[in-house]
Amino acid sequence: MSEILKNAVRDIVDFPKPGIIFKDITPILNDPKMFKLACDEFTTFAKDLKIDKIAGIDARGFIFGAPLALELGIGFVPIRKKGKLPAETYSVSYDLEYGSNEIEMHKDAIKEGERVLLIDDLLATGGTAAAAEQLLYKADANLVAISFLIELDFLKGRDNLQSKTIQTLIHY
Amino acid sequence: MSEILKNAVRDIVDFPKPGIIFKDITPILNDPKMFKLACDEFTTFAKDLKIDKIAGIDARGFIFGAPLALELGIGFVPIRKKGKLPAETYSVSYDLEYGSNEIEMHKDAIKEGERVLLIDDLLATGGTAAAAEQLLYKADANLVAISFLIELDFLKGRDNLQSKTIQTLIHY
Repeated sequence: MSEILKNAVRDIVDFPKPGIIFKDITPILNDPKMFKLACDEFTTFAKDLKIDKIAGIDARGFIFGAPLALELGIGFVPIRKKGKLPAETYSVSYDLEYGSNEIEMHKDAIKEGERVLLIDDLLATGGTAAAAEQLLYKADANLVAISFLIELDFLKGRDNLQSKTIQTLIHY
Repeated sequence: MSEILKNAVRDIVDFPKPGIIFKDITPILNDPKMFKLACDEFTTFAKDLKIDKIAGIDARGFIFGAPLALELGIGFVPIRKKGKLPAETYSVSYDLEYGSNEIEMHKDAIKEGERVLLIDDLLATGGTAAAAEQLLYKADANLVAISFLIELDFLKGRDNLQSKTIQTLIHY
């Protein structure tokens, strides 16, 4: 299963800068069978976890998180880059290779104790996902699991995450 | 139907700057009944149009476009801000109130003549959607229709669009 999906991922050399091989997931999205396969895998994993809310990370996390929330019949919570969410937010900054980044979540998006599944397309160093975990802890959410389409195992991103229940469809 | 959805939209005063009333759609996403209602409306509209691809605009267009593509069993094409798509792209710049913006689409995302439905959350002045139309024309796509969750009628954004088949779920 994951081999089929993996074969649909496209390597783009030297993007976004020389020396990086970017994992391009757009061929998966472009092929309805592949896209459905990935979404079905996410649903199968999540459906026994009694999840109350799906939190998806801006922007590719929306592409998998929104269908998952609809399939499970639960709410979808966008975690966004700073300045995009209009109401009161929790905010977490995290370091990048150069500089830093900040992500936000609406304070009223998740009630205390709600069981949340976090989703994004890619686990690399884990900086963004770890910041998203912090956002969910600020909201007193019960972060039950995290799902990724792709994990770059050699970067050991999951070592930077509090969550131990992690689903990944494609490993490198 | 649209009144139910409209009641779920939240007005945020003075966002992103003083004098603007921002239409916050996150309460629709947070309520699974509302979210499904919106997605069902998009599906009902699109399903008789023999669409080959859904093109969604970064980032909130992904939230509605991805489920729509899955529901119709067709591919999803992300239209993204400059620098996000790794392979060869078409690119279109457009003017903002201050400065300009640029959006891109992968050159191989849509084949010549494919029937495309474009989707985004909001039609305001139409600058972004008009640029997305140009991207699709560059790809020789057959842009069949555009769907929006919200249209700010008083800004007359649809006058700036080439497309005449436009679905909007909520009007202001």
